[in-house]
Amino acid sequence: MNLFDPIFRCEPIAKLFRDDNFLQRMLDFEAALAAAEATSGVIPSFAANVIAAKCRVELFDKQQLAEAAALAGNLAIPVVKQLKALIASENKDVAGFVHWGATSQDATDTALVLQLREALDLISADIEKLCDALAQMADRHRLTPIVARTLMQHAIPTTLGMKFAGWLDVLMRHRERFREMQKRCLVLQFGGAAGTLAALGAQGPVIAKHLSEQLKLPLPQIPWHSHRDRLSEIATTLGLLTGTLGKISQDIALHMQTEIDELREPAEENRGGSSTMPHKRNPVACAIILAAATRVPGIVATMLSAMLQQDERGLGGWHAEWETLPEIVCLSAGALHHLANVVPRLEIDVNRMSENLNLTKGLIFTEAINAALGEKISRSQARDFIDAASQRAIKEKRHLRDVINDDQKIAKHLSSQELDSLFDPRNYTGSSSEFIDRVLENHKSQKNI
Amino acid sequence: MNLFDPIFRCEPIAKLFRDDNFLQRMLDFEAALAAAEATSGVIPSFAANVIAAKCRVELFDKQQLAEAAALAGNLAIPVVKQLKALIASENKDVAGFVHWGATSQDATDTALVLQLREALDLISADIEKLCDALAQMADRHRLTPIVARTLMQHAIPTTLGMKFAGWLDVLMRHRERFREMQKRCLVLQFGGAAGTLAALGAQGPVIAKHLSEQLKLPLPQIPWHSHRDRLSEIATTLGLLTGTLGKISQDIALHMQTEIDELREPAEENRGGSSTMPHKRNPVACAIILAAATRVPGIVATMLSAMLQQDERGLGGWHAEWETLPEIVCLSAGALHHLANVVPRLEIDVNRMSENLNLTKGLIFTEAINAALGEKISRSQARDFIDAASQRAIKEKRHLRDVINDDQKIAKHLSSQELDSLFDPRNYTGSSSEFIDRVLENHKSQKNI
Amino acid sequence: MNLFDPIFRCEPIAKLFRDDNFLQRMLDFEAALAAAEATSGVIPSFAANVIAAKCRVELFDKQQLAEAAALAGNLAIPVVKQLKALIASENKDVAGFVHWGATSQDATDTALVLQLREALDLISADIEKLCDALAQMADRHRLTPIVARTLMQHAIPTTLGMKFAGWLDVLMRHRERFREMQKRCLVLQFGGAAGTLAALGAQGPVIAKHLSEQLKLPLPQIPWHSHRDRLSEIATTLGLLTGTLGKISQDIALHMQTEIDELREPAEENRGGSSTMPHKRNPVACAIILAAATRVPGIVATMLSAMLQQDERGLGGWHAEWETLPEIVCLSAGALHHLANVVPRLEIDVNRMSENLNLTKGLIFTEAINAALGEKISRSQARDFIDAASQRAIKEKRHLRDVINDDQKIAKHLSSQELDSLFDPRNYTGSSSEFIDRVLENHKSQKNI
Amino acid sequence: MNLFDPIFRCEPIAKLFRDDNFLQRMLDFEAALAAAEATSGVIPSFAANVIAAKCRVELFDKQQLAEAAALAGNLAIPVVKQLKALIASENKDVAGFVHWGATSQDATDTALVLQLREALDLISADIEKLCDALAQMADRHRLTPIVARTLMQHAIPTTLGMKFAGWLDVLMRHRERFREMQKRCLVLQFGGAAGTLAALGAQGPVIAKHLSEQLKLPLPQIPWHSHRDRLSEIATTLGLLTGTLGKISQDIALHMQTEIDELREPAEENRGGSSTMPHKRNPVACAIILAAATRVPGIVATMLSAMLQQDERGLGGWHAEWETLPEIVCLSAGALHHLANVVPRLEIDVNRMSENLNLTKGLIFTEAINAALGEKISRSQARDFIDAASQRAIKEKRHLRDVINDDQKIAKHLSSQELDSLFDPRNYTGSSSEFIDRVLENHKSQKNI
Repeated sequence: MNLFDPIFRCEPIAKLFRDDNFLQRMLDFEAALAAAEATSGVIPSFAANVIAAKCRVELFDKQQLAEAAALAGNLAIPVVKQLKALIASENKDVAGFVHWGATSQDATDTALVLQLREALDLISADIEKLCDALAQMADRHRLTPIVARTLMQHAIPTTLGMKFAGWLDVLMRHRERFREMQKRCLVLQFGGAAGTLAALGAQGPVIAKHLSEQLKLPLPQIPWHSHRDRLSEIATTLGLLTGTLGKISQDIALHMQTEIDELREPAEENRGGSSTMPHKRNPVACAIILAAATRVPGIVATMLSAMLQQDERGLGGWHAEWETLPEIVCLSAGALHHLANVVPRLEIDVNRMSENLNLTKGLIFTEAINAALGEKISRSQARDFIDAASQRAIKEKRHLRDVINDDQKIAKHLSSQELDSLFDPRNYTGSSSEFIDRVLENHKSQKNI
Repeated sequence: MNLFDPIFRCEPIAKLFRDDNFLQRMLDFEAALAAAEATSGVIPSFAANVIAAKCRVELFDKQQLAEAAALAGNLAIPVVKQLKALIASENKDVAGFVHWGATSQDATDTALVLQLREALDLISADIEKLCDALAQMADRHRLTPIVARTLMQHAIPTTLGMKFAGWLDVLMRHRERFREMQKRCLVLQFGGAAGTLAALGAQGPVIAKHLSEQLKLPLPQIPWHSHRDRLSEIATTLGLLTGTLGKISQDIALHMQTEIDELREPAEENRGGSSTMPHKRNPVACAIILAAATRVPGIVATMLSAMLQQDERGLGGWHAEWETLPEIVCLSAGALHHLANVVPRLEIDVNRMSENLNLTKGLIFTEAINAALGEKISRSQARDFIDAASQRAIKEKRHLRDVINDDQKIAKHLSSQELDSLFDPRNYTGSSSEFIDRVLENHKSQKNI
Repeated sequence: MNLFDPIFRCEPIAKLFRDDNFLQRMLDFEAALAAAEATSGVIPSFAANVIAAKCRVELFDKQQLAEAAALAGNLAIPVVKQLKALIASENKDVAGFVHWGATSQDATDTALVLQLREALDLISADIEKLCDALAQMADRHRLTPIVARTLMQHAIPTTLGMKFAGWLDVLMRHRERFREMQKRCLVLQFGGAAGTLAALGAQGPVIAKHLSEQLKLPLPQIPWHSHRDRLSEIATTLGLLTGTLGKISQDIALHMQTEIDELREPAEENRGGSSTMPHKRNPVACAIILAAATRVPGIVATMLSAMLQQDERGLGGWHAEWETLPEIVCLSAGALHHLANVVPRLEIDVNRMSENLNLTKGLIFTEAINAALGEKISRSQARDFIDAASQRAIKEKRHLRDVINDDQKIAKHLSSQELDSLFDPRNYTGSSSEFIDRVLENHKSQKNI
Repeated sequence: MNLFDPIFRCEPIAKLFRDDNFLQRMLDFEAALAAAEATSGVIPSFAANVIAAKCRVELFDKQQLAEAAALAGNLAIPVVKQLKALIASENKDVAGFVHWGATSQDATDTALVLQLREALDLISADIEKLCDALAQMADRHRLTPIVARTLMQHAIPTTLGMKFAGWLDVLMRHRERFREMQKRCLVLQFGGAAGTLAALGAQGPVIAKHLSEQLKLPLPQIPWHSHRDRLSEIATTLGLLTGTLGKISQDIALHMQTEIDELREPAEENRGGSSTMPHKRNPVACAIILAAATRVPGIVATMLSAMLQQDERGLGGWHAEWETLPEIVCLSAGALHHLANVVPRLEIDVNRMSENLNLTKGLIFTEAINAALGEKISRSQARDFIDAASQRAIKEKRHLRDVINDDQKIAKHLSSQELDSLFDPRNYTGSSSEFIDRVLENHKSQKNI
């Protein structure tokens, strides 16, 4: 047990990358290889059955594997060795058929791809879940006014739905990237000692095809032992996703600040509170997601650096991937899972949004008033008048509307009713509804793909 | 002039990102915006023409821009200001129509996308060029034996064509990623102060559409001021490409080592030689490509970290992109350009490859002999016999063939002719030809897409 | 001119790393080398004078250098070549004495160290300036109450002086690191083709000593062509500094948010305002500093990755440093310069701090009341009572003090005067004054070192 | 058990960072805090004893901790809660004294510092061990000629001792950095909810002092909850060290290549060999060290990025450190341990070095001959003659000595004896012996510090 796992990771995915599952996936490779070679007539069917029967992780001595791995410098060598020994104790000849024509990296890479396939499916499901929640939120709050903030300062009004639609829009692109990536990157590794399958003579391609069918993993054009773009693309795709998750969770945390308090992570017992500080509603999920977003870029860079693998099979770069890629997957998946849980249950304080919209005493409507006045007098004159009024409002700490009421140069062009309308944030949300519609439509049309 | 540019960068692409071109692209945005607004009737046609006439970088005072940028903290604000001043000196009213309804980031982001579009097209052309060269090389050397090296040690034979086919295969995937990325990421930015286009009232979407047509940039579903996944995907896609370029150039440099000397960068005057060390053939292009591959991962991580942009428009993250993404583009493009120049003219020393294949005195054929003998006697017995022979060869520093000749347990099963064949690297290249065919076919079929 | 320079960089430091200065530093190396060799009798004094006379950057043809550098893959080779040509046109024999016994990397590395020495001195001066400003602020505001925020939520009161003291304390450590680093890392590079100074025969060490004296650069134990820890330590030391600058500027930006508004960057014309959003006070300097803090970690990682330089002089790693280390220096120095300008002129709104302290309606004093009540009744009972009162205050949206007044279980133990005192933030600042004193004292005592 | 641990990590250090030890260090903090508070009279002595008795990790329910941590988002909250519950079951009043005046981060940070202190001591010991081995090697091989390689090409001769001295020199600097860092960075964290120790009233500083004595951890000037430069400096210091380890192991791997074969990792059963490729001597330790050197830069960048912690205690940045810093420590320590084991037992093939020195047929002596001839005729003429001879040697594939013998322009100035000497690598090692002496002397003089 690692006590940080439940904080940062999503258990079903973390589990996929733990020792037992990794070993089992390597053994799955060995069993499937034997089956494929039996089908091709390279080894006896009987041998394939004996091998398959021993390819079960619970038969292995992990203490011994650990010791042997420390020496060998990888896991596949001792796993194959122990598998042979297990079989040899029953049938020495069959032991000779184990791992026939394959290299350690074939087993290790393919096992990793099998783990990744399951993990990426689970992550995809969470992306869908989050997208659905965001779509609902965007629709529901399409008319809820909230202040838009730029450079961490009040700008003009927008809608909460617009925020959600923006988040949804980017997640839709991640969804698209995921599909392209899964299709391109999840393929079999099988090349033998140096990628030529030479030990299998003319049978190489046929066995590869059977193996690919056994494991339901597409067959690549050519083995890819030292070409790691596929694994690195998985890393970068997750890196992009995590960047977005970090952006959203940072937004939520900013909105949860005591002074702003417009959004809140869902209330939960033993989460985010403090016995000695009862006013606390710590953004606990956001903290975890932000931690992931802080951690992932550096380890994505590691994957890119590790791409410089020498010749037919590399030294060090390959080894650098083993813990790194699973870490990226687990951290991204954990962050996503947290956010997918938070979004549908976000507490939304519409009153606070409304109060905050009023904090600048009408100044956030300057642009709106500028535009309205600019249609009645020249734009440059309008701007001059409103500038002056705004400066007065700031200096005298008055509401802009009051200053304008007193300023005949402006007031004579704008009726009280017009001013009511201009100072209503619901009337200055521009094309937000149309943008929301487009994003929702895209979401809907993509659902069925 | 920056003296490092000619070393690391490809001039046509470096140029795209220099001040003048960036300013011009921002001015292109302003001119197109005015035209779009004139088409929509929001500003007079006449004003759009006046604005367009001033949107020429040579009219701008760059010293003043520099000083103003230092204060404003970005370039768009002083550019718009200077543009307005240029116009106001002729027609004050028209000045009021400049940049109408847009925000600094609309101009800056769109200008960047315009630069990127050109740059990515140039890079794509170099990818094509490199792919074509690799395809030729793979085909030409499909039967040229060379030692395959794993973990930086001799493994078994392979072919030089197989190496090139592996390089081509991965570049084909980069080509695919490029297409997807260009389609997804090169879009207009236009949202006004906070992404709602509120200052344009109901006209926002129409103007956006016209603007998008003017600039021939697709219109996104929704503005993306603080959602930077598109720019970061450009970064990661280039990061993946550069990883591959680094891998290939590291391979070339390894093959150029004095002791190995199988491949050489093309000879060129004033390049890679040394007057006091006449034996030197320094892999100069490889050094530059490796430098890029060392530099790009860290700055890709920067782009991922910078994705955490707050609210509607972020603080710091956006600013962090300005120099970072162009740097990634320039370094990747420079590395690619170097490699695309090197590959078609690589010097290939087939004799050295042959000599090196013989360095281990036949031991690299052990796997082949194992397989051959294993078909005559049991595999485990074959392995035991060959193990013993190999150990003897190592101990006595003799050629394995000689040891086998002396070892009746083995020799009686393998005729002299069979042994001739087994010790010929051309006969132990497995499925390499089939792999090469598949890759070449894929290349051919993709050419027409 | 690069228009981003005035935004991100501090001109006196940026200038140090521009082409002209870098070339001049290489020429300084060549002139000093000739002088050292003349002193040692290895070349004629007369030759050293001729060489020195030509080691002036204004004599060089930079266009030609650029073209030659593109071929040679580094700058030193064409610089030395052009220097020789310049001299040969006057005296062919003297040309033969140029760069005698040195390698390109000797000139390049030493030139870089000379640039760094100047830059680090300038940075140190800004650190001093910032420390002094922070010391003043910490002292001046040692009693100014402000809410302490943890996990971006109100926690308990603290003082503004405590904040400044914390910032000062960490900067004092950066100051210390700087001193250690400058002493350890700024040394001469001089080893000849492979670090042995072999071309100089027995004279190597003497010439090295003279050269070190000429350039006033300490002599290292041994040349360090492929051991780059010194340069990387400069990078990491600046990386640590920039992390702190980012933390502080993020704090300032958070305090500048419209809803919080306790601190503000100094007002300046054409800085941070917006004509259409007059309420805006964008944290422009913070944006720039945060951009630097976002960018520097990735390029520090580049320097660490680049340390893997092969054998006696590396391939690619060395090349990766050339633009990277100057970039780190310039970005860090720019960020520091911005902050050193902001801190002494920070606008501080004590009234807003006071209002914000009251936002939670007394709940931030819960810990204080807990402690006070816990001294009268048992701690666990005190906590139970206060918990209940707090929950009531939250539920009923009342001030905690009012709830306590109504709650005899608590009120009977705490007099009205005691409650006055407990709800006064000035009385719950703990040991902040003592902490401030310690930091100020340390600052004072370090000033004289 | 994590099966990658024995490959990448050094067990005594990995163990320090596992759950049990981390929990125990947090409990050590709680026990020491109680003791310090008892000494100061803030809680009864009796309570401190009861608390201490329960601060034993084996009393804790880790499954429950895991579940609670998932909710709380950190470990300290549930640990303190469970500790209180353990105590409350015996004495409810004493439970109220647990963790008095402290915050979760005080316990977590101090526990981490306690782990780090042990880990850094172990690492220091391995640095010493490696330095001693290198010193021995440098001395032993001070006269062993080996070819110096620059840009991965033969340059001129050097000595193997020079290589080792270069490695030692840089490690001596890491040793120095370690000492400075350990002194500066390993300090107590104790500040209460927001760094003021307010809950302890006037007693804060005294309790802090007692606590610091209890844990034998120096007391900092001021709490450092959101100032993480100390932890990041530990990361960067280890990052610098790992860069050097990577450089050295890359050198070893390059020297182990089949064609070069001058150095070899010590032979060990089940390590680096291959049953089907008996010629293999894979650099297994180098692979692991290179993997660490590939991984560490990215996660050092993470630590730098995580420094941007908000206000008094940060959100996300702090959380990002928890697994990251231990990872850096473990990977660096693992790499160091591997190298410290390899160096003293390196297999050194002096014959191969000698053969390789001859590979360029005398061309690596060109510089030496240039210098010798240059003392007899003018340097520029000497260079012209030798250039021509070298080109002829290359073209005709003859040994340079033979060409010179035939070239009277050269041969008449250099006697056969002189030529013998010039073509002997032992005579062209320059100042290497003096450099080695300086490094060894420095090592010796530092030993006693």
